[in-house]
Amino acid sequence: MTLIKFIEIMAILVGAFSGFIEARRKRMDLVGVFTVAFITAFGGGTLRDILLDRRPLFWVIHQEYAILIFVLALVASPLIRTLRQIVSERLIVIADAIGLGLFSIAGVAAALDAQMPIFIASMMGVITGIFGGVLRDIVCNEVPMVFRDGKPYAICAFLGSWMFLLMRMSELPHDFALWSSATFIVVLRLVSWKFDMRLGR
Amino acid sequence: MTLIKFIEIMAILVGAFSGFIEARRKRMDLVGVFTVAFITAFGGGTLRDILLDRRPLFWVIHQEYAILIFVLALVASPLIRTLRQIVSERLIVIADAIGLGLFSIAGVAAALDAQMPIFIASMMGVITGIFGGVLRDIVCNEVPMVFRDGKPYAICAFLGSWMFLLMRMSELPHDFALWSSATFIVVLRLVSWKFDMRLGR
Amino acid sequence: MTLIKFIEIMAILVGAFSGFIEARRKRMDLVGVFTVAFITAFGGGTLRDILLDRRPLFWVIHQEYAILIFVLALVASPLIRTLRQIVSERLIVIADAIGLGLFSIAGVAAALDAQMPIFIASMMGVITGIFGGVLRDIVCNEVPMVFRDGKPYAICAFLGSWMFLLMRMSELPHDFALWSSATFIVVLRLVSWKFDMRLGR
Repeated sequence: MTLIKFIEIMAILVGAFSGFIEARRKRMDLVGVFTVAFITAFGGGTLRDILLDRRPLFWVIHQEYAILIFVLALVASPLIRTLRQIVSERLIVIADAIGLGLFSIAGVAAALDAQMPIFIASMMGVITGIFGGVLRDIVCNEVPMVFRDGKPYAICAFLGSWMFLLMRMSELPHDFALWSSATFIVVLRLVSWKFDMRLGR
Repeated sequence: MTLIKFIEIMAILVGAFSGFIEARRKRMDLVGVFTVAFITAFGGGTLRDILLDRRPLFWVIHQEYAILIFVLALVASPLIRTLRQIVSERLIVIADAIGLGLFSIAGVAAALDAQMPIFIASMMGVITGIFGGVLRDIVCNEVPMVFRDGKPYAICAFLGSWMFLLMRMSELPHDFALWSSATFIVVLRLVSWKFDMRLGR
Repeated sequence: MTLIKFIEIMAILVGAFSGFIEARRKRMDLVGVFTVAFITAFGGGTLRDILLDRRPLFWVIHQEYAILIFVLALVASPLIRTLRQIVSERLIVIADAIGLGLFSIAGVAAALDAQMPIFIASMMGVITGIFGGVLRDIVCNEVPMVFRDGKPYAICAFLGSWMFLLMRMSELPHDFALWSSATFIVVLRLVSWKFDMRLGR
């Protein structure tokens, strides 16, 4: 298994895990747990692909990811309390930051492929990075967390997306631009979390 | 009128009726009643078609169904309390089970037509069967009922969808597979309702 | 700048402004304020284009509008309380009515272009006119206002859409039909507001 594949799976698992937790907090049953986990993991990329009219969707080509979340929902659902004790908050935040970085830059790159103008491409990056969580909160009947906690989450995705766009406009190599701006998002997110930074309102 | 046409209209009417009731419970006005009824009746199939990129949508080709719900919203809106007394709960559950069976199997068949892999096809069946109600609950600002009441509703759609898929893979005739698995969903749903079965959480 | 361009920008700004206010009322941060403003301004047209499978989306071609809302969210967010005092309710209602008229008729026209049947075209007009506000309320975790306040808002869009359709079927000139039915919606909305009309429930 390549590194990128490993990171991709980890990012999806973290999305699903955050969906599991939220669904259980709302006392959902197995169907709800699977659906919310699935929406959290794939919602951002799916919305981006619908807006850009790209098909087939990522999870349609890779049905193994859908099956993975299905099996996890079956297995992990009763174990979620134990899991939350084993898995430290620090680990979740780190994995989630990696997911944010990867999904966002993948979103910008897909938008550029689809000939989107530059500001729209940066928005597609942020949408891919954060709308999984937004849709999770809407289904769970909450005001989306990312819109109200004042923490720089979407902002990290936005800045990293622009870093990628500027590097591509400077004709730096695609892979270098991709990895360095994804890393930038991860680091920025972790630093802002470490120091508990807040945006003003 | 053929039998399938009759059943189709009945399934749509039941979806619309459940939307009427929920909208009135939320004290919505005529616009809300029509919209929620429409979303409940057609939301699942519409979401499936957007995910599969199928156009035109079902209710776009058959505008007579949209007009039917519009007329019903105008006429039935003031009568809804009376209607709920006339129509027994048993009748609603039976009609709703028929709708679940038909919509789900129609969803799997559409996904197979669109060359979806098999697990994704089963998911499309469930989405077609249950997302009308999910979208209804989201618009009505509720946590979707089907995700939290622990009753085997989506599960019936899921099992029936797999029955259809396995029958198709065994190269049984299309119509026989379609009718027997739709019937299976209806019977399973009614039996689980009769004995008030619950999933564990 | 042509008159139509000016009115278009004003309609979008009013949508965004109503998103700003709702997002601030929910104590959202900068990310939420921008997103909700954007969804309110462009949500109706975006949903219509997804249902009709039209691409690229309006705001993708005109990224200047997205940038405008972005800058406004940065600048206006701290000033929103002051702005609400300066801008009278009367002005907001008038601008909003203009937006409703323009968006709705643009929606019907787009649906006719896409060969939609006539009742569906009228629905697309209403969806374009009101679903920005509906999606805003869903993201803000409210039952959509337009479905429950009993005021003739969607109804104005619906009647004006039919006026446009009937004028087009009578082969009246396109531009005349467009402007007169948009004006009809604006006037109807303002009159119903002036006299505080309500639909019965």
